[in-house]
Amino acid sequence: MPTYAAPVRDTRYILDHLLGLERYSNLPGLENATPDMVEAVLSEGARFCEEVLTPLNRIGDEEGCKRHEDGSVTTPAGFKDAWEQFVANGWTTLSAPEEFGGQGLPHVVSTAISEYLCSANHSFEMYNGLTQGAIASILVKGSDEQKAKFLPNMVAGKWTGTMNLTEPHCGTDLGLIRTKAEPQADGSYKITGTKIFISSGEHDLSENIIHLVLAKITGAPDNVKGISLFIVPKIIVNDDGTLGDRNGVVCGSIEHKMGIHGNSTCVMNYDDATGYLVGEENKGLAAMFIMMNAARLGVGLQGLAQGEVAYQNAVQYAKDRRQGRALTGPAEPDQKADTLFVHPDVRRMLMEARAYNEGARAFILWGALQVDLSKKAQTEEERLAAEDLISLLTPVIKGYLTDKGFEVAVNSQQVYGGHGYIREWGMEQFVRDARIAQIYEGANGIQALDLVGRKLAKDGGRAIQTFFEIVTTEVNEAKADPNAKEIAAALEKANGELQAATMWLMQNAMQNPNNAGAASYSYMHLMGIVCLGLMWLRMTKASGAVLANGPEDQAFHEAKLVTARFYAERIMPEAGALRRKIEAGAESMMALPVEAF
Amino acid sequence: MPTYAAPVRDTRYILDHLLGLERYSNLPGLENATPDMVEAVLSEGARFCEEVLTPLNRIGDEEGCKRHEDGSVTTPAGFKDAWEQFVANGWTTLSAPEEFGGQGLPHVVSTAISEYLCSANHSFEMYNGLTQGAIASILVKGSDEQKAKFLPNMVAGKWTGTMNLTEPHCGTDLGLIRTKAEPQADGSYKITGTKIFISSGEHDLSENIIHLVLAKITGAPDNVKGISLFIVPKIIVNDDGTLGDRNGVVCGSIEHKMGIHGNSTCVMNYDDATGYLVGEENKGLAAMFIMMNAARLGVGLQGLAQGEVAYQNAVQYAKDRRQGRALTGPAEPDQKADTLFVHPDVRRMLMEARAYNEGARAFILWGALQVDLSKKAQTEEERLAAEDLISLLTPVIKGYLTDKGFEVAVNSQQVYGGHGYIREWGMEQFVRDARIAQIYEGANGIQALDLVGRKLAKDGGRAIQTFFEIVTTEVNEAKADPNAKEIAAALEKANGELQAATMWLMQNAMQNPNNAGAASYSYMHLMGIVCLGLMWLRMTKASGAVLANGPEDQAFHEAKLVTARFYAERIMPEAGALRRKIEAGAESMMALPVEAF
Repeated sequence: MPTYAAPVRDTRYILDHLLGLERYSNLPGLENATPDMVEAVLSEGARFCEEVLTPLNRIGDEEGCKRHEDGSVTTPAGFKDAWEQFVANGWTTLSAPEEFGGQGLPHVVSTAISEYLCSANHSFEMYNGLTQGAIASILVKGSDEQKAKFLPNMVAGKWTGTMNLTEPHCGTDLGLIRTKAEPQADGSYKITGTKIFISSGEHDLSENIIHLVLAKITGAPDNVKGISLFIVPKIIVNDDGTLGDRNGVVCGSIEHKMGIHGNSTCVMNYDDATGYLVGEENKGLAAMFIMMNAARLGVGLQGLAQGEVAYQNAVQYAKDRRQGRALTGPAEPDQKADTLFVHPDVRRMLMEARAYNEGARAFILWGALQVDLSKKAQTEEERLAAEDLISLLTPVIKGYLTDKGFEVAVNSQQVYGGHGYIREWGMEQFVRDARIAQIYEGANGIQALDLVGRKLAKDGGRAIQTFFEIVTTEVNEAKADPNAKEIAAALEKANGELQAATMWLMQNAMQNPNNAGAASYSYMHLMGIVCLGLMWLRMTKASGAVLANGPEDQAFHEAKLVTARFYAERIMPEAGALRRKIEAGAESMMALPVEAF
Repeated sequence: MPTYAAPVRDTRYILDHLLGLERYSNLPGLENATPDMVEAVLSEGARFCEEVLTPLNRIGDEEGCKRHEDGSVTTPAGFKDAWEQFVANGWTTLSAPEEFGGQGLPHVVSTAISEYLCSANHSFEMYNGLTQGAIASILVKGSDEQKAKFLPNMVAGKWTGTMNLTEPHCGTDLGLIRTKAEPQADGSYKITGTKIFISSGEHDLSENIIHLVLAKITGAPDNVKGISLFIVPKIIVNDDGTLGDRNGVVCGSIEHKMGIHGNSTCVMNYDDATGYLVGEENKGLAAMFIMMNAARLGVGLQGLAQGEVAYQNAVQYAKDRRQGRALTGPAEPDQKADTLFVHPDVRRMLMEARAYNEGARAFILWGALQVDLSKKAQTEEERLAAEDLISLLTPVIKGYLTDKGFEVAVNSQQVYGGHGYIREWGMEQFVRDARIAQIYEGANGIQALDLVGRKLAKDGGRAIQTFFEIVTTEVNEAKADPNAKEIAAALEKANGELQAATMWLMQNAMQNPNNAGAASYSYMHLMGIVCLGLMWLRMTKASGAVLANGPEDQAFHEAKLVTARFYAERIMPEAGALRRKIEAGAESMMALPVEAF
């Protein structure tokens, strides 16, 4: 049975030493995040994840969710109890506004907790994650009445939320949506259609489920410009806030999936269901994108979370399992064999996992802080800069970190040898669960296209220029730091590749847009390498500074310096190869006629 | 439900144009492989795989194997019927010697068929694959009496075989084996111990199962030098060849695995089971390695096979699924959306799959031909050269091709978007099934260590020098060929990186063996890139020559030229990054104390 210990120490290090969270204590909302408060939230969250959610993870996988004939769905044994504790302890309320019952904590803090939740139990975390996304959409686009009616119970965790985009014939291309919304005399709509892959679509955890549904209003354009967003509660909410009749929405079946069995992924059938328009007619996609952007950061986090828990277990196995001898001679001659730790290739997998996980954690929390700053920084200029950054980086966080999270999970499974393939050890579940993160909320190829096709060029390339300035400035500052010299040089080189690739795109994507498409995936990975490189540069500087001040927590900070060097030597060399792939262009990729396949 | 069409056309192309199989028709055993015979075997094998085995693949996954209280095991519905047809059609006899009832066909032909078998049904193929491995061991190391007693029925498929190495506490490190063999007065042994992960260990397909078991004879050294190999039949075979008593070996349980559910992976309990020594006492590992080397080539093939079938289905999905518009403007304006094929990033995944699959097929069949030549070439010098090559390349075939097969399966699943995660579509099964090939028969890290630690240095580096000469000669020959110029230049560069990395290893592995271990995985991949590059160079030359002679099968050969270019532009750039990783050495990989993890 796999175990999990939430990496509170590393989270604190990032919040304190990398982000300097205290610097922002003058900002509204961030003043709540005092060091004591943060410490309490992290350690209590860790405890809940380790003690309550981790033991349910394999049960969720083995048992899955069950749909009954009436369309109701039972979650795996223990999920309902855990949800009740989760709600009672206020974990659904962390970063929601105080006016709706939330604690008003910054996004960066709830993000840290979400990592732990997802490491402990990815499937369970999704019931909450989708709810938080739905809350975000209603907060921004809902009417005051809708907010008052739905948000308090959603924030409290009494009701959960879902997002309904995909239909059998369309996922990425939402213009093809067929679900219809027919206006009613009372201002509501009758929603009819079928949605698939609806995570947390039906279950027994909450007394109501608030579905956010994309549909086309009668007469609207039959393309992306005719899509509207609706609130469709599972149970109608009366004006006095009590629950009324069952609405015309039912779970038609549960999907049989590769993983995340503990989450009910439903086919949802809407049949004249009562829905309420959110925001303006035909502007549904924009409203849904608020939810989707939040969700994409959450999915990037899932990549890290799966990588982290898989890594932790691989470390333990490598400490326990004795097999073979060190190449340099027996490390423990009195034992019949040395531990796996003596083998460089096992170390390679563990060090890669470390470099990706710790880099990803810093990257995500930096991103989450931008979400806070984009809303709460003091000046419009600062808010805009933060908004630019997080908008640019969202596809990288989602795409790169889920690819690497999957890779880390696979490598961690590999450390176990044959035992990694056996269900009881739990490692193969991490691989299966991690796999979904590369697929949903916009498959990673879509993230790459979003980055290259939309985010790079936006506002005349303002965001990417800002990003390059950040990297260049920090590299130049670091050159004099003896600890940081190596990672700074590697980052400068990788950033140079990224700048050259960006230039190549500017020159070649106009003449043939396929050059952008053909470059996109490599570009996303190249940017990912630079982003984590920047994080490792920051960690090197921060840990070097601590070490210079004395022996406080020496081992922790020295490990940061070693891991940064490993990242520079063993991961950053890929940047040059990616640039060469990008500059190869689209020709050989697109040359074959379809019939040749 | 996934489909499969065996790539007979491509196999024929490789046999005829790349390997020039007819050139070897003067060799014993290879004279049987006339073009007509090969054509008949391939097309009949293809039919059987497509029509009989493919439809059973998902059934095998969903149903799995069932162990009953008496230790007997039932294979999934349809497997027994299929095995009967398989045996009746003589598929178990392909490359076995004629004196034991085999057809005496060259290994290269049976390898081609094994690819189809495994694409169609990996789990089913294993029942045969392990039997062929056991046959190979007995052929080389068994006594005449053992051959006469066991081989005819094994070749005929009436009996199947297994290999029993792993025990709960040891997999890679076989010196730790605890299974005991006690000599008996009649020359037999009593075998006692527990073996785990025994593929095809117990099932209902054959009337007997011949286990090859590693054990330590009473008093033997308690390390790798004390391991002997035994034949332990499930049912004792009387001297007259009839079946006698049940032997003391029983399946204790079936493992619950991530994939290959159709194959029964058993815990086998030996309790005073009668066993017969194969070859010499304490020389069991060498005997088992005959089986293991054959098995490693077979596992490399599984990587290709999973990649191929996953790719074929992804192609079909990309042709059928309409989503979004081409970046260059609507390709089919009369449709509501274009097919996935217009999207460069989908093409990237399909072209990578093609480049890996076709390159791998050529590589494996070239390797299989070396197996034939190592036994049957006319001169000792030719036999030695072939033996050198296949010995060097076996870990690359196993390690690199299974890594790439898994990657291709994952990318092919990715083409399906959300549907790829749903069991009914079958794509996620390919990923789960492909995953085992990276783990068993020596995890890929062990392959890398075998390559760098053993194969490179063997005989003063004779094999790698031969390999470099082959590549260099063919590159130089190709420089004048306008079709081959680009791939030749890319191969020259990649081969230069490999040579430099080899030199670095020679200079740095002696002073610190961890430098070899730390380099090994990247080295294996670098060599894999060069090997497939060599194959693509050969295909370019072969197809260019055909095209120069006229329009025969033009589309097929033009596709080869494009795919070679894609390989040169999009895959070979990784060679430089791998060299840089290798030359980084072991320092940052090994620097952290174990307590830091």
